[in-house]
Amino acid sequence: MDIGTLVEQAREGRPRAVARLISLVEAASPQLREVMALLAPLTGNAYVVGLTGSPGVGKSTSTSALVKAYRQAGKRVGVLAVDPSSPFSGGALLGDRVRMQDHATDPGVYIRSMATRGHLGGLAWAAPQAIRVLDAAGCEVILVETVGVGQSEVEVAAQADTTVVLLAPGMGDGIQAAKAGILEIGDVYVVNKADRDGADATARELNHMLGLGEARSAGAWRPPIVKTVAAKGQGVDELVAALEKHRAWMDEHDQLTQRRVRRAAQEIQTLAVTTLRQRIDAATLDALAGQVARGELDPYTAADALI
Amino acid sequence: MDIGTLVEQAREGRPRAVARLISLVEAASPQLREVMALLAPLTGNAYVVGLTGSPGVGKSTSTSALVKAYRQAGKRVGVLAVDPSSPFSGGALLGDRVRMQDHATDPGVYIRSMATRGHLGGLAWAAPQAIRVLDAAGCEVILVETVGVGQSEVEVAAQADTTVVLLAPGMGDGIQAAKAGILEIGDVYVVNKADRDGADATARELNHMLGLGEARSAGAWRPPIVKTVAAKGQGVDELVAALEKHRAWMDEHDQLTQRRVRRAAQEIQTLAVTTLRQRIDAATLDALAGQVARGELDPYTAADALI
Repeated sequence: MDIGTLVEQAREGRPRAVARLISLVEAASPQLREVMALLAPLTGNAYVVGLTGSPGVGKSTSTSALVKAYRQAGKRVGVLAVDPSSPFSGGALLGDRVRMQDHATDPGVYIRSMATRGHLGGLAWAAPQAIRVLDAAGCEVILVETVGVGQSEVEVAAQADTTVVLLAPGMGDGIQAAKAGILEIGDVYVVNKADRDGADATARELNHMLGLGEARSAGAWRPPIVKTVAAKGQGVDELVAALEKHRAWMDEHDQLTQRRVRRAAQEIQTLAVTTLRQRIDAATLDALAGQVARGELDPYTAADALI
Repeated sequence: MDIGTLVEQAREGRPRAVARLISLVEAASPQLREVMALLAPLTGNAYVVGLTGSPGVGKSTSTSALVKAYRQAGKRVGVLAVDPSSPFSGGALLGDRVRMQDHATDPGVYIRSMATRGHLGGLAWAAPQAIRVLDAAGCEVILVETVGVGQSEVEVAAQADTTVVLLAPGMGDGIQAAKAGILEIGDVYVVNKADRDGADATARELNHMLGLGEARSAGAWRPPIVKTVAAKGQGVDELVAALEKHRAWMDEHDQLTQRRVRRAAQEIQTLAVTTLRQRIDAATLDALAGQVARGELDPYTAADALI
């Protein structure tokens, strides 16, 4: 099938065409240039929500609960579960998809686990392009789920229109969350598994660490803390309301456009750097690396020689 | 103090000079070019061990136990705790340093938490340069500790001479470990907290997932699984023995040089890409990002225009 037909079918929302386009992203296909050129005028309509948090806080369950809520509101939903899995496992693991099986037969939902490890440019390269595909395919809401412990993963989550940071009681002290670097990026915070012991303490600690009690400049966004039990659907309506409130605030303060321009800038920069990286001559690099490893040359001088 | 004097003092192993040089790395100082040129002939002597694993497996405790063991063997030890913390916390958190306080007064140990979030080029840029500083300062063993859940963090750990992957019983099923992408990078595996229920099951599951029961080509390295209770010092001698065995195997099979050349190549490439990225014109990028955000331009064409 030619790229034009594939894009046309994806635009109509056909799941197989969407799947094939995202597979091209995973494979870093040279055809993506053509794909992205055709997709560009179709993009910019989706509301992109990033969800992140340590393993075990219930990201997939929360994502699934949000899918349900948005589907009930009649929205078309795309889910991108960015899975830091490995060549070892031969691609994304089934875990997320299994948990998402409630929605497997709903044509208004497109769910995709995407593996990017070992990928040229990694997450930063692949995630925005997969989002473009879902956007062009008519998804009104795109939920991007990443494990919030790595630098790249947190950066991807932070580039959404609205970033949701999830915590759960008993997941370790606040220092662990702060170490994960996810405390400053949330627009909305969720304490999931709120029926467990310690949920109030976690919310209080979070409130304290975020300095939510402190004075803020007028008009500044004040990240809410929402308590949920995603597995039972509790608090999900409140979460959706918090997301909508943030979106409305962004619209009102011209933040949505600014965020999207910033996201595009990041995307362009990553593509430019990847292109430049591909032009690096392997034989020259090897020779220089040998000299650096033997201490005959410093890495900066080697980098200059490479350029 | 001029750079020459600082490097000379670091070479003598003076902790304050070492600290100042690593601070230059954290700050991505332009003076690093000069620093690295002076350090180059002093490097290549340290044995670099990467330690990684999910939060809570006991990485800091294990690192501390290894420091103790290597100090007893009379080796000078450097520790680099790569901390994915944030501008929010204003730098690396105290957690690691607190746990390391046993060694705080030992002049044969240099311990440093390094924060790289928000850093141009991030971990991949900063970690190798900090390792160079410790190497030049006469550390015979350098332990690099990273949280093994993010792409960048795992990549840094995988670039050591020997990579240690830590697990603990009850940290979730094997799928969580596989999702973290750390299962394929270990030269040595550790099941820490081995006095807890489920330690044997974790080791068995790991053995199964790694396919250690399967036939391997002659001469191939077979990653051992070592059980430890790092907090009590149990199994630490066995871990050190496993590390030494891996190092000897690498020497015998010419792997050590190969790994170091590969590491240098990665380092050079990252520096080259960072240099190219710095040359990108901000105003041009902003204009292009606006067009991409509005769907008027695709990101590939924008990247080409940027280059």
